[in-house]
Amino acid sequence: MAKTTKMFKLLLVILVCSVSLNLVFVFKIVNVLGGGDHHYSLELSWTKRDAAEAEYVAAISCSGHGSAYMDGLILDQDGNKEPVCECNACYGGPRCSQFLPSCAADANGGDPYFLEPFWMENAASSGVLVAGWHRMGYSLNFKPFMVMSKELESHIRELHALVGNAVTEGKYIVFGVGSTQLLNAAVHALSPQNSSSPARVVASFPYYPLSKQQTEYFNAVGYKFEGDASLWKNKSDAATMNLIELVTSPNNPDGQLKWAQLQGPNVKAIYDRVYYWPHFTAISAPADEDIMLFSISKLTGHAGTRFGWAVVKDESVFKRMSTYVFLNTQGVSRESQLRALQLIKVVLEEGGKPIFDFGYTTMSNRWKS
Amino acid sequence: MAKTTKMFKLLLVILVCSVSLNLVFVFKIVNVLGGGDHHYSLELSWTKRDAAEAEYVAAISCSGHGSAYMDGLILDQDGNKEPVCECNACYGGPRCSQFLPSCAADANGGDPYFLEPFWMENAASSGVLVAGWHRMGYSLNFKPFMVMSKELESHIRELHALVGNAVTEGKYIVFGVGSTQLLNAAVHALSPQNSSSPARVVASFPYYPLSKQQTEYFNAVGYKFEGDASLWKNKSDAATMNLIELVTSPNNPDGQLKWAQLQGPNVKAIYDRVYYWPHFTAISAPADEDIMLFSISKLTGHAGTRFGWAVVKDESVFKRMSTYVFLNTQGVSRESQLRALQLIKVVLEEGGKPIFDFGYTTMSNRWKS
Repeated sequence: MAKTTKMFKLLLVILVCSVSLNLVFVFKIVNVLGGGDHHYSLELSWTKRDAAEAEYVAAISCSGHGSAYMDGLILDQDGNKEPVCECNACYGGPRCSQFLPSCAADANGGDPYFLEPFWMENAASSGVLVAGWHRMGYSLNFKPFMVMSKELESHIRELHALVGNAVTEGKYIVFGVGSTQLLNAAVHALSPQNSSSPARVVASFPYYPLSKQQTEYFNAVGYKFEGDASLWKNKSDAATMNLIELVTSPNNPDGQLKWAQLQGPNVKAIYDRVYYWPHFTAISAPADEDIMLFSISKLTGHAGTRFGWAVVKDESVFKRMSTYVFLNTQGVSRESQLRALQLIKVVLEEGGKPIFDFGYTTMSNRWKS
Repeated sequence: MAKTTKMFKLLLVILVCSVSLNLVFVFKIVNVLGGGDHHYSLELSWTKRDAAEAEYVAAISCSGHGSAYMDGLILDQDGNKEPVCECNACYGGPRCSQFLPSCAADANGGDPYFLEPFWMENAASSGVLVAGWHRMGYSLNFKPFMVMSKELESHIRELHALVGNAVTEGKYIVFGVGSTQLLNAAVHALSPQNSSSPARVVASFPYYPLSKQQTEYFNAVGYKFEGDASLWKNKSDAATMNLIELVTSPNNPDGQLKWAQLQGPNVKAIYDRVYYWPHFTAISAPADEDIMLFSISKLTGHAGTRFGWAVVKDESVFKRMSTYVFLNTQGVSRESQLRALQLIKVVLEEGGKPIFDFGYTTMSNRWKS
C-alpha cells in the first residue's frame, strides 16, 4: 500500500510537471505574436525563413561600431558564405573592434546614422516583411500612371498636421526618389519648355552644392544655374526675367531659417524643407510655401530608402512634376513606399515625441562633446 | 483498492496525453524554421509582428482576381482599418468576385503579373524582412558615392553567365531606378555636354514611346530626339553628325531581334536588352554590345521595384552614367537592391529553369487562348 501511495505521488508530481510544461507551451504560442493582436494567426508558415534570416544577421555583433546586413559583403573563406560586419569610418577588423587612429573625425558627414539606435530600440514595430509578390506592377490598382500609395499620402498629411510644420490642406503631394529627384523635377516644372531665355536658377550663399551640380549636369534648354541669389537683388533686368530661387530652410550647412530674397512677377521659389523637423529646429509655424520638399532621410534617418515628397499648391506645377518623375523613373520603388509607410506609422503612433526627443538629445550631445 | 487503481490508470492516461502534447510542442518548435538551417535560432523575437502581419495580409482572399497589400487602401467602415482587395482590371466587389463585362480586355497592358503565381508558389524563398535600421546611410560602408551593393552586382554577373544572354567580363555595371532612368543616363553620357550641335537620338520604327517622350521632355542642351533611324541611313551629313541609336532587342512591341541600322565614327548605340531572357525569346548567343540595359521588371516581373542595370564597356561612359544616377536620385533605394538580390538568388538557386519555364508556358498559353 505504501509503495502504491509512493508511486501515486510520484506520478502526480510528474503529471503536474508535464501539465505545467503544457501550459508554458500554450502560453508561449498564444503570446508568440507579442501583444495578441486579434488579426494574426498563431503560427507562421512561409515567412519563417525570412524572419529567422533577418534575426540571424541582426544578431551578428559588430562591437557597436558597425552593422552586418542581409545584402552585406560576403567573405568566402573556407567555403562559408556569411554576412560580415561593415564598420563605421574609424573602425576596422572582422568585428569592428579595432580603432583606426589615422581616420578623419568627420568622415560620416551628412549620414543620418544618429537615429540608428532609435530604430534598433524599436525593432519590433519598425520592420517590414516584403512578400515575393508584393506590388509587382508598373502601376497600383491596375490604373496607368498611378504610382503613389494613397495610404502613404494620407499618413504624410497626418504627420504634417501632428508636427505642425507644413500646411497640406488643399495642396497636392508628389512622391520622388528622395528630395534630390524632386528638386530637379521642380526646377524643370517651373522652367519654360522651349525658350530662348532660360530660367535663371539662383540660391543664397552658402548653398547645398548638389543643387548647383545637378542643375548644371542635366543641362536643360529651359534653365541655367546662375549662383548667388543676392547678386540678382538690385539688377534692373531681374524684374523681367524668369528666376527660380532655391531656398533651403533650415539651411544646409548652417541651419539658418531662410526666406526667398527675390520678389517679382517672374520669380518663383522652391523651398527645401527637409530639415524642418523638431529634432533640428523649433517649429514656429506651419510652412505654407507654394513648393515645399521633404524627405524621410532627415525625418527618420533613412537616407538609403530614397523617399521624398513635395507639397505643391498649383495643379499645373504638380502635374509637370508628376510627369517628370514618371518619365524619369516611373515613380518610386514600392518597397521604399512600403517602408516609409511603416516608419511614419511608428512616428505617428507614438505622437512623434520619442523620435524627436531622441534625435534632439543625440544632436545636442554631439555639439556639447 | 479498485478505486485507487482506477484513479491510477486515469492519471496515467492523462500523463501520457500531457507528455505526448509536450512532445508535439517540442517537435513543432524544432521544426518551426522549416529545414533546420544551422544558422537560425529556434525562436523568433522582434520579427514576429512583421512576419505575422505579412501572412495575415497574404491570407486575405481576393477570388484569384486581385491581391491585398500591406500598404493597400484601407477602408474605414465601422472604425475598423483593414487592408482590402485590389482587383485586376476586369473585376470588382470587396473580394474581386464580380466580373465587369464592360471592361477592356487588355487593360493590364505591359504589367508583368504573369509571373505573380510563380512568386506566390515560391513564397517561402522569395520574401525579405527589412529591419528598421537596414542601410540607413546615403552610401554603403561609409564610403561616399558607394551606392551599389557589391553582392548584388556579383549575383547579376553570375546570372548572365548562367543564362548566357550577355557578356559581362571586363565590363562595368551601373544600377538604375529601372531601365527607364538608365536609358536617359546613357543618352546623356553619350551626348556632348556643351555643344552647338546636339547629338541626334534616333530609333527604329516601331519604337518604345517612352524613349521619345523622355528625350523630348528632359529637353537637354546636348541631345534632341529625331525619330526614325532609317531616315538617317543614307543622309550624307549623317557621317559627320553625333548620332545615338536606341535599339530595343528583342523589340517592344513586336518582339523582333534587332540590330543598329546606322554605322559610322560618330554613331553610338544603346541596346535595350530588357526582353532578352529565355521566357521571351531563344537565347542564341550572349549579347556583347557596348551599352546594354536590363531590368528585373521583365526578368522576374517586379516592375514596381524599379531596379535595372546597365552593362557598359567603356569606363568614361560608365563614370558619366554613374554621375547621372547619383545627381538624379543618389543611387537606387537599398530596399529595391535587397529585394532584387533575393529574387535573383531564387532564380540562381534553381538554375533558372523553373521561372523561365513557368514564364514561357504562361506566355505561350496566352497567345493560344
